[in-house]
Amino acid sequence: MKIDILTLFPEMFVGVLNNSILKKAQEKEAVTIQAHNFRDYSENKHKNVDDYPYGGGEGMVLTPQPIFDAVDQLTSHKEKKPRIILMCPQGETFTQKKAEELANEEHLIFICGHYEGYDERIREHLVTDEISIGDYVLTGGELASMVIVDSVVRLLPDVLGNELSHMRDSFSTGYLEHPQYTRPADFRGMVVPEVLLSGNHKHIEEWRSKESLKRTFQRRPDLIKKEVLSAEQIKWLKEFENE
Amino acid sequence: MKIDILTLFPEMFVGVLNNSILKKAQEKEAVTIQAHNFRDYSENKHKNVDDYPYGGGEGMVLTPQPIFDAVDQLTSHKEKKPRIILMCPQGETFTQKKAEELANEEHLIFICGHYEGYDERIREHLVTDEISIGDYVLTGGELASMVIVDSVVRLLPDVLGNELSHMRDSFSTGYLEHPQYTRPADFRGMVVPEVLLSGNHKHIEEWRSKESLKRTFQRRPDLIKKEVLSAEQIKWLKEFENE
Repeated sequence: MKIDILTLFPEMFVGVLNNSILKKAQEKEAVTIQAHNFRDYSENKHKNVDDYPYGGGEGMVLTPQPIFDAVDQLTSHKEKKPRIILMCPQGETFTQKKAEELANEEHLIFICGHYEGYDERIREHLVTDEISIGDYVLTGGELASMVIVDSVVRLLPDVLGNELSHMRDSFSTGYLEHPQYTRPADFRGMVVPEVLLSGNHKHIEEWRSKESLKRTFQRRPDLIKKEVLSAEQIKWLKEFENE
Repeated sequence: MKIDILTLFPEMFVGVLNNSILKKAQEKEAVTIQAHNFRDYSENKHKNVDDYPYGGGEGMVLTPQPIFDAVDQLTSHKEKKPRIILMCPQGETFTQKKAEELANEEHLIFICGHYEGYDERIREHLVTDEISIGDYVLTGGELASMVIVDSVVRLLPDVLGNELSHMRDSFSTGYLEHPQYTRPADFRGMVVPEVLLSGNHKHIEEWRSKESLKRTFQRRPDLIKKEVLSAEQIKWLKEFENE
């Protein structure tokens, strides 16, 4: 996979792209990731990339020219059209399903604004997706694009050391994960549940299933699909409801 | 405000903390932000911070000792208890309202896991909040904590240059923003709507109000509160519904 990020702050990406999974994925050549300053593509003699909005009003608007030209250059040798993703608070909310969809692409281009608005022609005629990572306001699209890059790259084949680890995550299985404990068994008087020290695997599995359902019931009842519950799970749910 | 981030990857934060608004906010002394490697607090002779889960199973679990001790040290001279925020896919989903709530605090501590699970005693006895930034899986809590830090710090007094700018954002006003255009009026044959070039401010305002409502209708109908609409807005909505 090839990922290009258009931004006015390429230095923001340095720490994130050069550590942990993103670093390893690049070393393994599962992905190449580059942050490009689209100011370099400005034809304006002062290298400006924004201007006042037509019709007046506060704030500046990113001009179409540098962003269109940057995308043109990044796609000039490509046969297949890449996904061109505008980071945007008005966009579709990002989900794990969208991450899985993007992980099947060969080439992703992210466009990150910062303070400024986007000229509408970028939305209408250039991009394939507008994505928001949640209902909160960020200074720019940079962090949002890093979030998406991280969530997509970890799904690529051979990127995660343990092939199974992304199967175990919340949102990949149906329920939230049960509580986990490790040593010491007593930390400042806070003790590990006895069943986990018992060595009885049947009891441990039962405890974990029940706790997993309980946590889901308490925090994300929307994830529980009642029609596929076992008789035991239904009994547990009644217990939780009565607590 | 003081922000401390506990992480095994403090280098991931360098680019983000030293650019744009987060850099300016620190220069203006509106906030101090430090990323700490909680491995430094491990009492284990190999500086381990995780161990196998009690009861067996895949994956590693972060041990309570280094994280409890790091928080103890960061709070030892404090009278007021800080907000201690666990970055966690099972947590409450972050929103702009939560950003505004956190912006009123004096001290935030973020705990970022990475691959590993958290020992349950960290959740139960140490943290005040568990937060997720959305329904997708990330490699670790680092990017999620950066997202929250950015969204909170930009709300602090005197941080944004233009005091009004955060009032204009999507999610801060009721509707999504209308389309914006800037020069040139004709870019590769794609033209700016005539009304915006007309100089007629009444018509421009009307066009913007209608386009703002239209975009909200198309993308986020959940944001439209029908009971507070004007007669004209109701007429517009009917138009959109018929299109």
